[in-house]
Amino acid sequence: MIKVVIIGSGNVAQHLVQAFAKSKEIDVLQVFSRRKETIVPLLDSNKIISSYTDVAEADLYIIAVSDDAIAKVSAQLPFENRLVVHTSGSVPMDSVDNKNRKGIFYPVQTFTKGKEIDFNDIPICLESENATDFELLKKVAQCISHNVIKSNEKQRKALHISAVFVNNFANEMYRIANEICDENKVSFEILKPLILETATKLMTLSPKEAQTGPAKRNDLQTIQTHLDFLSNKNHVRIYKIITESIQSNGKEL
Amino acid sequence: MIKVVIIGSGNVAQHLVQAFAKSKEIDVLQVFSRRKETIVPLLDSNKIISSYTDVAEADLYIIAVSDDAIAKVSAQLPFENRLVVHTSGSVPMDSVDNKNRKGIFYPVQTFTKGKEIDFNDIPICLESENATDFELLKKVAQCISHNVIKSNEKQRKALHISAVFVNNFANEMYRIANEICDENKVSFEILKPLILETATKLMTLSPKEAQTGPAKRNDLQTIQTHLDFLSNKNHVRIYKIITESIQSNGKEL
Repeated sequence: MIKVVIIGSGNVAQHLVQAFAKSKEIDVLQVFSRRKETIVPLLDSNKIISSYTDVAEADLYIIAVSDDAIAKVSAQLPFENRLVVHTSGSVPMDSVDNKNRKGIFYPVQTFTKGKEIDFNDIPICLESENATDFELLKKVAQCISHNVIKSNEKQRKALHISAVFVNNFANEMYRIANEICDENKVSFEILKPLILETATKLMTLSPKEAQTGPAKRNDLQTIQTHLDFLSNKNHVRIYKIITESIQSNGKEL
Repeated sequence: MIKVVIIGSGNVAQHLVQAFAKSKEIDVLQVFSRRKETIVPLLDSNKIISSYTDVAEADLYIIAVSDDAIAKVSAQLPFENRLVVHTSGSVPMDSVDNKNRKGIFYPVQTFTKGKEIDFNDIPICLESENATDFELLKKVAQCISHNVIKSNEKQRKALHISAVFVNNFANEMYRIANEICDENKVSFEILKPLILETATKLMTLSPKEAQTGPAKRNDLQTIQTHLDFLSNKNHVRIYKIITESIQSNGKEL
């Protein structure tokens, strides 16, 4: 069995613990966590540690903490020349302290507290300093996902920014729509089938092929009617700029 | 059986013909279409007409043409005092010519050529001038959907604009992400599970609750790293404005 220690207790750490628990080839020796309450329901309590001096010897250490804590946490690890990876999409591999062998274990997904997710479909991007470590990372990742990808730092950064667009920014479109519905006393629920279909469409069409609507048709009259209707300045600004972006169809503005 | 004539041959008309064909209570007497080829596979050819003089007497006429053609088409109908509705989210009910009784039959969904869709889940917003007509519209709508809604013009307009945000604008976020992936030689496929999960999350959480990411966390360092990475001016502009929108969290900017 491959021995893994997870450092962190947030959403990513919790989901990893749950995913590894289902694999017979991975043994989660310990979780390092100063906030035990999120991990307690997932692991024997004697495996939850909160002091670096208690860290056991393992094949792989996965740092799943907030981006700005990665460097500090990796510097505090009281050992050398072991494989230490982090799970962030935007932090360089070099942020892992030089005393250990470095790598990346980046799951491209949004994790929500309390919401179960099928890890099997989640793409995991891997990077490492040397080929042997990469093979180990690959083995570990394949125990929980059938979608394992070798990336480099530039690709990972591009994926992370793209993830911000398809996840955070698309969600902001949902939030604004919710706000417009509330202002006009109509239920946001009505839009949910459309939200699902818009995402599902992408499984068979490219976003360029899937686009419809007044901006795509260059229907200036409807666009003006919409702008006249909107009262919130932020909505107007976003409506205008994204409409321009659709109209430009990928050409530089 | 309720006798229905559909006027139009585009995506909405085609999907309506298919949905009504499954109902035993609706008889699609005719489809009026100048471009027969899209309708021929869906209906007996003797039911496809292309001259207004051939229009049969029916309980309901559904105009499913482009927004700017609705008024003209309804004016050309060679009869009076029958129930004539259109399917647009943004065109006023009054655009239907005064000689007939007016109504709205607006399905809140995106229809893609050749892509089948389960009409049963699609919300249909109804409006009419009088209560008897509303009851008929409701009966017809309920034959194909379990999600039938009474709306007024302001609510319908709000829904249509909100639909632009959750559908067209969210899709534009996907398109930009695709562009960023292409520029950095990484597959857009990797983001598809995230796109689906972002939409699926909305079925149990509000968009406000579902939000994550650097803008939500006010992680200024990651935001700056992303802005430095982006080379396309349009991407930079949209990244900045939506990040500000998320940071304002619904407060007027």
